[in-house]
Amino acid sequence: MTDHREDVERLAELVVSAGANVQPGQVVALGSEVGKEELTRALAGAAYRRGAKFVDVVYFDPFVKRERILHAPEDVLDYVPPWFGERAVKLGEMGAARIGLSGNSHPGVLNDLDPARLGKDQLPWIKEVGKLVSDRSTNWVAAPCPTVGWARLVYPELDDEAALDALWEDIVHVCRLDEPDPVAAWNERMDAIERAGASLFEHRFDALHFEGPGTDLTVGLLPSSQWIAARFSRRDGLPHMANLPSEETFTTPDPQRAEGVVRSTKPLVLFDGTIVRDLVVRFEGGRAVQIDASEGEGSIRGIAARDEGAARLGEVALVDREGRIGALDRVFYDTLLDENAASHIAFGHAFTFALADEADHPRANESGVHTDFMIGGDDVDVTGVTTGGERVPVLRGGAWQI
Amino acid sequence: MTDHREDVERLAELVVSAGANVQPGQVVALGSEVGKEELTRALAGAAYRRGAKFVDVVYFDPFVKRERILHAPEDVLDYVPPWFGERAVKLGEMGAARIGLSGNSHPGVLNDLDPARLGKDQLPWIKEVGKLVSDRSTNWVAAPCPTVGWARLVYPELDDEAALDALWEDIVHVCRLDEPDPVAAWNERMDAIERAGASLFEHRFDALHFEGPGTDLTVGLLPSSQWIAARFSRRDGLPHMANLPSEETFTTPDPQRAEGVVRSTKPLVLFDGTIVRDLVVRFEGGRAVQIDASEGEGSIRGIAARDEGAARLGEVALVDREGRIGALDRVFYDTLLDENAASHIAFGHAFTFALADEADHPRANESGVHTDFMIGGDDVDVTGVTTGGERVPVLRGGAWQI
Repeated sequence: MTDHREDVERLAELVVSAGANVQPGQVVALGSEVGKEELTRALAGAAYRRGAKFVDVVYFDPFVKRERILHAPEDVLDYVPPWFGERAVKLGEMGAARIGLSGNSHPGVLNDLDPARLGKDQLPWIKEVGKLVSDRSTNWVAAPCPTVGWARLVYPELDDEAALDALWEDIVHVCRLDEPDPVAAWNERMDAIERAGASLFEHRFDALHFEGPGTDLTVGLLPSSQWIAARFSRRDGLPHMANLPSEETFTTPDPQRAEGVVRSTKPLVLFDGTIVRDLVVRFEGGRAVQIDASEGEGSIRGIAARDEGAARLGEVALVDREGRIGALDRVFYDTLLDENAASHIAFGHAFTFALADEADHPRANESGVHTDFMIGGDDVDVTGVTTGGERVPVLRGGAWQI
Repeated sequence: MTDHREDVERLAELVVSAGANVQPGQVVALGSEVGKEELTRALAGAAYRRGAKFVDVVYFDPFVKRERILHAPEDVLDYVPPWFGERAVKLGEMGAARIGLSGNSHPGVLNDLDPARLGKDQLPWIKEVGKLVSDRSTNWVAAPCPTVGWARLVYPELDDEAALDALWEDIVHVCRLDEPDPVAAWNERMDAIERAGASLFEHRFDALHFEGPGTDLTVGLLPSSQWIAARFSRRDGLPHMANLPSEETFTTPDPQRAEGVVRSTKPLVLFDGTIVRDLVVRFEGGRAVQIDASEGEGSIRGIAARDEGAARLGEVALVDREGRIGALDRVFYDTLLDENAASHIAFGHAFTFALADEADHPRANESGVHTDFMIGGDDVDVTGVTTGGERVPVLRGGAWQI
């Protein structure tokens, strides 16, 4: 098998620098998984070389979770030991760095289990971590970790070695590790995305209009809908890149105003692995009133029926043609990559921090789901509509016009 | 490679039943290591089938520790995040079950590192766990986990597959998994060891006299030196077996009284992997005044010079010829197995809980080291000496006489 040690080292360096921006003296919480040891160790080394005080690696094991779902008493399947949340709270108090690794290294290990039992065990998700994000107390990043298991999903037609090689090639490219100076490349890319986002916010558009093959959709925005890139900052100003790679600028739309029809431009992979293809959604008064698909129709209809806000929009995000993920025209079965492939909208939960005015927070959509689907592409025009009815080109042929 | 799935399952069942004695509703803390996934998952399944509430697996990764020792700032090498100890305290408060897996799965990974830097990082050892043992708040067990890495140490002359097969065969045998009913076999064995221990305590021996080839050693005992087997109980009475396998009954001797010379009967493996062979120690007034060895002499002399109590005795333990580990005449490079191979004494730290009278606790030896070495065998007679000078045979030809 090709030796990916050099790629591993370079990805690790990028993740601790341009990503989490690990600082001297910091504790680094590293959420990993069995099967991701090589990158995990490289990340620990890179963080210590930057002066980290301690790298606390937690290896999640989905096969241990499988044993729990199979054999544990039903009434304790939702139990989480108190120290899980207490650790998260402490990480916030000390302003720690956090690194999470995406990419399903053991696909299918939970697939045959009873969905009702499986639904009760939310681990490795810990509810206290949500607060760390919203209170901006930690500098964090989610980054991909190539494994053979994941590579088999993406390249089922190749043997293990070739599949892993191909996935690494993709990851190197979308993480811009093939640039002479990847950190500089990301700074430049984030600058461009933030410029577009700032310009969008300056226009204070009342709505965005998407027009393309099978798509004629108007998404209403709130007065303080602010366009945000993945370059976050800790509340004390320390910059970090929350997702690496990231190609999007996103905001929280008005859940009461979406009108028209939209055709998805990429397949959508749901959390349980279901693929939804040729999705077409018609909105009226902000609500999805018709949902059709050639594959996975029942699953996506089920999600949109989950609760009151599940059929309304919680996010709208724009990705230009400089984005490297969409250009590969590949399904990665990983939200971190797939949602950055193209402009997208999401059913469900909205991020209130994308609303500049706290008075608007109650207007953001609420739901227990958040499901992104891709609606953008070079042949989908995006136009901003001001409150006065003026139409301003935003994306044409995938290029920023503002 | 031979499929060891059945052995893994049977070992897991034994460890959660005869070992930790996991109870319905218990949280189970499982201290594992990357490379021990198969037994870890089987243990989780077995614990959940017994009704465990949650199995909290912590996978330690010595390669992450290696990155720390290589690259972390010197002044933070002893840092331990507060949640490590807090978890231990909570485990005690909830009366959890604890399972630890021995067997070095990655020998050598730390060998080339700076000993001074390495000495500052005591993880995965956590000081709060010591209290869990002394306050008897948890039901716990240490058990072996065969891995290829460990097998290479024990069987360097075999290829990986044959070495792992051979190690599994040993583990199955010493854990009595080759008995029709292993739990019953352990109950019977523990009964026998405890009967011998109770008889030893009833005699209230003032000293034990070891006589054999090159050995003529008298070890003084304290008035309340109680002979303890691995069948512990939680402070509420819940029984568990702290070591599995275990063949010894041990007590805390008088550190002021050891006289004569002793020749070790097995090689001694130190924590850093150094082997000490042909060790001969002469004691005067409880203190080792001369230490010779054909190999590793400097290391063992260094240990005995570490502090005031390091050259005095903290433990004396007896193993009869029914013990299965010594009969294999093999060095396992694992304290859990090697110290149960034969009767042994230990330089350094003493367990005060082996002294029935708290008034004797201050008389127990104190030291930062605890180093066992084997002095027993079928050709070493052990005789109890009463305060009145009466001599009572204890072990003859490796068989209990009391």
